[in-house]
Order: sequence, then C-alpha cells, then structure tokens
Amino acid sequence: MDEIEIHEFKKVKLNEPVLLEGLPGVGNVGKLVAEHIIHEFKAEKILELYSWHFPPQVLVESDGTVRLCKNELYACHSKEHDLLILTGDQQSVTNEGHYLLVETLLDIAERYGVSRIYTLGGYGIGQLVEKQKVLGAANTVGLVEEMKQYGVEFREEEPGGSIVGASGLLLGLGKLREIPAVCLLGLTSGYLVDPKSAQAVLEILVRALHLEIDTQALKDRAEEMEKVVERLKEMEQAQMPRVREEELGYIR
Amino acid sequence: MDEIEIHEFKKVKLNEPVLLEGLPGVGNVGKLVAEHIIHEFKAEKILELYSWHFPPQVLVESDGTVRLCKNELYACHSKEHDLLILTGDQQSVTNEGHYLLVETLLDIAERYGVSRIYTLGGYGIGQLVEKQKVLGAANTVGLVEEMKQYGVEFREEEPGGSIVGASGLLLGLGKLREIPAVCLLGLTSGYLVDPKSAQAVLEILVRALHLEIDTQALKDRAEEMEKVVERLKEMEQAQMPRVREEELGYIR
Amino acid sequence: MDEIEIHEFKKVKLNEPVLLEGLPGVGNVGKLVAEHIIHEFKAEKILELYSWHFPPQVLVESDGTVRLCKNELYACHSKEHDLLILTGDQQSVTNEGHYLLVETLLDIAERYGVSRIYTLGGYGIGQLVEKQKVLGAANTVGLVEEMKQYGVEFREEEPGGSIVGASGLLLGLGKLREIPAVCLLGLTSGYLVDPKSAQAVLEILVRALHLEIDTQALKDRAEEMEKVVERLKEMEQAQMPRVREEELGYIR
Amino acid sequence: MDEIEIHEFKKVKLNEPVLLEGLPGVGNVGKLVAEHIIHEFKAEKILELYSWHFPPQVLVESDGTVRLCKNELYACHSKEHDLLILTGDQQSVTNEGHYLLVETLLDIAERYGVSRIYTLGGYGIGQLVEKQKVLGAANTVGLVEEMKQYGVEFREEEPGGSIVGASGLLLGLGKLREIPAVCLLGLTSGYLVDPKSAQAVLEILVRALHLEIDTQALKDRAEEMEKVVERLKEMEQAQMPRVREEELGYIR
Repeated sequence: MDEIEIHEFKKVKLNEPVLLEGLPGVGNVGKLVAEHIIHEFKAEKILELYSWHFPPQVLVESDGTVRLCKNELYACHSKEHDLLILTGDQQSVTNEGHYLLVETLLDIAERYGVSRIYTLGGYGIGQLVEKQKVLGAANTVGLVEEMKQYGVEFREEEPGGSIVGASGLLLGLGKLREIPAVCLLGLTSGYLVDPKSAQAVLEILVRALHLEIDTQALKDRAEEMEKVVERLKEMEQAQMPRVREEELGYIR
Repeated sequence: MDEIEIHEFKKVKLNEPVLLEGLPGVGNVGKLVAEHIIHEFKAEKILELYSWHFPPQVLVESDGTVRLCKNELYACHSKEHDLLILTGDQQSVTNEGHYLLVETLLDIAERYGVSRIYTLGGYGIGQLVEKQKVLGAANTVGLVEEMKQYGVEFREEEPGGSIVGASGLLLGLGKLREIPAVCLLGLTSGYLVDPKSAQAVLEILVRALHLEIDTQALKDRAEEMEKVVERLKEMEQAQMPRVREEELGYIR
Repeated sequence: MDEIEIHEFKKVKLNEPVLLEGLPGVGNVGKLVAEHIIHEFKAEKILELYSWHFPPQVLVESDGTVRLCKNELYACHSKEHDLLILTGDQQSVTNEGHYLLVETLLDIAERYGVSRIYTLGGYGIGQLVEKQKVLGAANTVGLVEEMKQYGVEFREEEPGGSIVGASGLLLGLGKLREIPAVCLLGLTSGYLVDPKSAQAVLEILVRALHLEIDTQALKDRAEEMEKVVERLKEMEQAQMPRVREEELGYIR
Repeated sequence: MDEIEIHEFKKVKLNEPVLLEGLPGVGNVGKLVAEHIIHEFKAEKILELYSWHFPPQVLVESDGTVRLCKNELYACHSKEHDLLILTGDQQSVTNEGHYLLVETLLDIAERYGVSRIYTLGGYGIGQLVEKQKVLGAANTVGLVEEMKQYGVEFREEEPGGSIVGASGLLLGLGKLREIPAVCLLGLTSGYLVDPKSAQAVLEILVRALHLEIDTQALKDRAEEMEKVVERLKEMEQAQMPRVREEELGYIR
C-alpha cells in the first residue's frame, strides 16, 4: 500500500460538478448530510481512498465482515448540478496526513473540473442549541456575500478563529488552486450525533444548489434524537448522576 | 537497518499454508495460542523481522543477554495443513508502522502461497468472564458462515466496531489482496494474561484446522491463573485495598 | 503542496539586511514587536511559507474568509539598516518541522545576504513582572558583549537553560552557517499577551539598530493591558473565583 | 541540515578502541561517568552529531552563548585500551530517531574498528539506594560471564525486562553486527543526579579495562550529593512538606 492509495471503480463524466465534503466530525453533522444526499440521489461510488494516515484498524460490519478505514467519493446528478460527494470513516490521525489527503482530494477534484466545494460540519457550542443556525466561512469574499443570501451567518468572532481538518484545509488549500470553497457549520452541542443540525445545513444546500431532495429521513432521525435529548434533560433536572459515556456512545 | 529488516534463516517448502497470527495484545491471548502451537508442533523459526517502528529498547533474557524487539515467523506441518505462525515481542508503536509491517507480512504470506489467515487475540470486557466465548470477524461473508459452524460467535454490536492493530489490518489489507482471513477473539477481562481465553481460541482452531495437538500445557496454565483470579476475588470481597499494579505485572 | 512551500511575491534588493524574527510564542511578545515594526515602517510582504508541519487548520478572518496557517517575510528600509521581518500564525507542530522550517528560513536569509539575526520572544516567569527586563542569548561571545551595552541582561541561570523553537534554532543553526544571531526575551508573566514586554524588547532594538520608530501604538496597547492586569489583581485580592480560561482567551 | 549531520573535527588513529557510551538518562549516571573519564584522560573531541530527532531547542551556556543539542565523540588512550567516549545533551525524542542515531554511531564505531562497547546508565529503583550495586546485560553469553568476575550482577528479574534508548539499542543493534557490547547500570533512586552510582559504575570499568584513573572528583561530588540526600531524609523525617520540584531541579 502506498501512503495514499486510490481505488477507482469507474470513470464518470461530470459537468463542472460541485464537491460536497461530509467526513466525520463534531456532531457527525457533515457525514449525516453527505450520507443523506448519497442515499436520496442514489449516488454512485466512484472511488475509495486508503491511507496509512488513517487509524490502524478495521471496522466490523453488522454481518461480521470487516473493512479498512477509508474515504469514499460518490457521484450523482441533481437538477442543476452534477455532484461529487466525499464521505468516509475517518480523517487523518497524523498532522502531515491531513495536508496530503486534502491535496490528493483536490487533485481528484481538479481532474473532474470541480467548480465549487462545500465542506459540511458541526460547530460545537458546549450546550444544547436553542436556535438552529448555520455558520459559514469561505475562501473568497464573493462567496461570503453569496452565502449570506441563503441564510448562512458570518460572525466576526466565530466559528472560533479556526476550522480544523478537511473542512478547513479544502478551503485553504483550495484557495491556492483558485477553487472557490465554502464551509457550512451547523450549530450543535458537540455531545451527540446531531441530525437536526444536519437538517439545517442541508436546507442551506437545498437553497444554494436548488436541490430537489426529500428531507424526511433526516427529519425523522432529528425527531428521534430530540426525544433522547429530552430524556437527557429530564435526567439532568432530576439530578441523576451523569449518563455514562458508554451510553452516550450507544446513542451515537 | 532499514525501516523494516527481514532476517531469513531458511527457505522452507510449504503447501498452501495457513498463517496464524498471535502477536501481543489484550490478555496476551493471541500470543499464548501462537506460542503453544509453536511449542507443541516443534515449529521451526524461518525468519525474524526488525523495524524502527518497534519501541527503541532491548529485552533482557533470563541469562543476562539482550535482544531487539522483533516479530518472528515459524513454520510446521500439521495433519491437514502446513502452518506459518507469526508471533513476537511487540506491535508497531507508530501509526504508519502498523500498515507497513502488515503489508510486509502479507508480502511474505503471498510468497509462501498462504491460503488463509487466522488472527488471534483477546476481546477485553472489563470484568471477569463468566462464560468463555470466542467472537469473530472475517473478510468474506463465506468465512463468517464457515466459522459459525465451529462455534465462533458473530455479534452485531461486537467486537465493538473496530479491531485495532495487526489482527485487524491483516484482515483489511488481506481483503485488498483477496486472501481470506478471519479474526478470533477470546473474551477476556483485559486485566490479566488469560490462558483460559487462549484455550477457547485454540479449541476453535483445533476444530477448524483439525489440529491434533496436546492442549494440556495451556490447561495447566489456565488452572494456575484460575487460582490467582480466585485469590483476587477473595481479596476484593474482603474489601482489601486494590492489588498494586506491580503485583499484577508480576503475575503476567 | 511540498513539505515546505514558498510563495515569493516579489524580489527586493536589500543591502546586508538584518533579520528580525517574531513568531508566536510566550506572551506573544516577539509577534507584537514584529507586527509593530511591519506596521510603522510600512514593510512590504515579499514571501509566504506554507508547510504540512503547521497545524492542519485554516484561520477565519473577520470578513468571513479563511487562510492557511503560514509564516510571512516582510522587507523594509530603516535609517541605518535594511530589515527583513519574519512573523506568522504558527510555529511547527512536529519535531523535525522545527528544524526544516528554520533551515529553509536560513537559506532565504543567506540568499538576501542577511548580516545578523535578532530573534524576539518572551520569557515567562509565572508571576506578574515587577521590573521589566530583557534577557539575552547569542551565538557568539562578541554579540553577548555588544548586547550588554544596550541593556540586555545575560544571567548565568537564565533564560532557563534552553530556548525552544525558531527563536532558539535560528541561533543554533545560524551558528553552523556563521550568521551572527542574538535572542531577546522580554520578561513576561506567561499568562497574557504582553505589549509591555514587547515595548521593552522594541526599545533594545531601537538602541541596537538606531531605529527611528513611533512606539506610541505599542504603549497604548500596553496601557490598555495594564488596566486588564489591574482588574485581575483586584479580583484575586477579592478572592474571587479564578477567571475562567475562556475570558483570558478573549483578552488575548 | 540532514536528518543526522556529522561534524568531524579530526581523524585519529586508534587501535581496536573500546567505545564507552554515557548519554543522559536515569540519575545522569552514564553521563557523569563519561564526563569524568573525558576530563581525567583529557580526551579529545573528534566529532559532533546533530539531528532533527533531538529536541528543537538550543542550550544556553553560562557565558550567554547558545549551542544546538548534540552528541559528541571523544578519543583518548588509556594504559591498555584506546577509548572512544560518547556523550551529549540529549537522546532522540522520536521513535525512529533512536534507531537511526544508534545505527549511525555503530557505523562510526565500525569505521574505528571498535572491539567492544560499554553502555553506561542508571537503574532507578524508586527509593534511596541502601547498598550500591551495578546490574548488567550483554549481547553475548561470554560477556555476561566475564562481567560477573568484575562484580556486575545479572539478575533474572532485572534490570526490569527492557533497556530503553541508546544504552539498550547499542547492544541490540550491535549484536546484529557482531560487536560485543555490555550495559552497566548503577542502582540509583531515579530522583537525583547520582555521582555515587556513577562511581560504582566507574569502578567496574576500572577493573574491566584496567584504567588508571583518579576517581577523587567523582568521590567529592558523591559526598556533596550525600549531604543533600541527608538533608532530604531529615526533612522527610521532620514531616516537612515535600521539597518542591524546582529545588530538586536546582540540585541537579
């Protein structure tokens, strides 16, 4: 295996596609959005990416089989745009791996003539979110202005000075290649998987890309999670001992 | 010394051998099984593997001499199968080392025409094991089904989502090379060296490979350890202060 | 992106320039001095330096746009000396990156015929500074003597045996290339951004390089910070609970 | 700078020299012995070794000048043996650096035709040493036997299973090159610089190599430290609060 190994399943023709990145991260927000779009648009997997910068482990599927940690790229057509969707199990666990993986992804993006990148994630605020919002950052001033129209908030003090990992580096390294890129971060507590935050991010995408997509599945999951959160709140009010980490892990 | 250095002692002819991996890990289960088979079948050491991804230290033998940390490969013949047995002092301590060492091992495996890989280890449950079981994961659906016949359990929720280190990567990276591989994990507390868990894993191997092997030595060690565990239980019931870590280390 | 990538904006002609290094560090002292000089002398940015040894993140500007972590080199002319000023967002986060980045910077310094290097930083003493001082270290005995004349203190026991990061390595690796270099460390508590300490360091530079520079901006900032420190002292005396880390972060 | 950079000051002719390694470590025992021999035999520095695997810092000398972390090799003649003495400021801070530096040192050793290696260090027992002893490990059985004659103890359970760093790897990697090597570890508390333990190690060397060396300087330092230890004991008996770490650091 090379440092980064690409397994390409098929070559597809895409017309100036938009790349959506939804790798694991805070509240799993980005990944939830990416998986929802992949599912609803029946996107096709076109390549997998392995690397020794991922954790040295395999994941066990529910049927007892295993697979290496990987990133995956899917392709599909929406009404107005061709889409490339990046998701996966993990981000790099080494410092240089973050840079090398994002550079490899940008090489692939350029090969497909990607016209714009949306990176998707959560912005953990350390408490339950009262009012759902999506914060943004972009690698051109024009994109900042455009995104404001779709309801994205750009705050002087937030998202906290820096954006870590692929969601940030795709913007930063993309800027050096002059690929316009914007990062959408749904507010989230940071404690739980957050489909409600994912829904808010998806709604921005729907407006920006004129996606015609059924958002019911995500709404259902958000409602389910809402009940879990209610239970957690009650437990807290009842001054019950802190829920054990494992239980939270189970909810995830 | 190269990043990974192979010292080959002798070339042996093997007929589509089965590779058993038993490197150090939880409860030392895999290593106990590997060492037992090596001892009982009088397996012959065919190569040693050094690497700067192992810890920068030497181990002191009981005669006062030292040796570098290494992995070792042994060969022997059983009734039905030729066997290659991998064991050693350590696994990689770096992220990329895990990948590189397993790739090197798979290169060697392919050179010997390995037909199947069994990786052996323990699955720590954080408490004393009431009923001994062996959990499994495999890199093909067929192997999952086959292993169920020998009493291996495949649980939806376990072994906990991921298998870390050589026991996992040999399956994952083996899959890319289309080498069938299965991981057998004996339930173990995770606190002590666990020959009883090793015995359970060995029994699965005996059934799967029709090994004719004396398991008495492992049984003896398991009984000995059983006494230690009993003593620990009594101490706990007598509300004695927690056994000092050093003592546990000594038991190991 | 290469391991270290240099983006050179323009070539300037400089006459045996002096290199001032003010990267982030204790009390942000060095960076404050560098930024002040860049601002007052309207220094021109001549190159940027990116590296995968910087943290894998982007920084969000107040207008909502992002940029990669980087180091920057500015050039300007003062009355007596041409100046090269190095500042940036971060230092290396890997061990080898520290060495490689400094070697790259020294290559650039040699290309411009740098005649001397001043590295600027803070020396944290873990308590509020009663009497502002600047400690020094240099890579030749002659420089030690010269600097004493400008009020730099050289103490047998301080600055504590070692100087970590670019401020130290520029002296050490510079010595191997026979580039004279001196490190100026303003005493600072280590808890807060410290413009007062920066002012003290700047004053040494003013004397050593005969800089004609307005120091008012730094004085203003120092006074402002003085008020914050007074408030902190009062809070401490009133035995109020420790100021939360976030608040201190905000001050920064 | 290369990954490892050797600055050779002069070529010396040596007759099958013995290499003594005394890099920093537990109780600084090895370094104390090496420095004592260098000083007493007026050994000549023949090379310095720099590396990006050392910490990214410079050390400040008492005259205010700085130097990079380095390892140094000295040469001298004793009555019976030519000696090469290795000492320095630091050992590697990376895993692979440990291996690469020791391999480089062994290359140099082979170039000088080194006939045997003694690595010197301390073995921390976590309490004050009642009876001074020197434990050993070697890379051949013959050396174990020989060293017993000089009073070195080889214990089944100690030195604790493994020897970390250059003192261990010189034996392990030396074995692969068939260079006989022995490690001498003086018992030490592990809390303080320990010239008394160094004296014990030196006495073994005196016997093994028939060194004619004045040990007074080390004895003086040991006595001085003895007084410090007495004071610490009294403080402990008087149930005074634990001596602050800084003070201990000062003693060092």
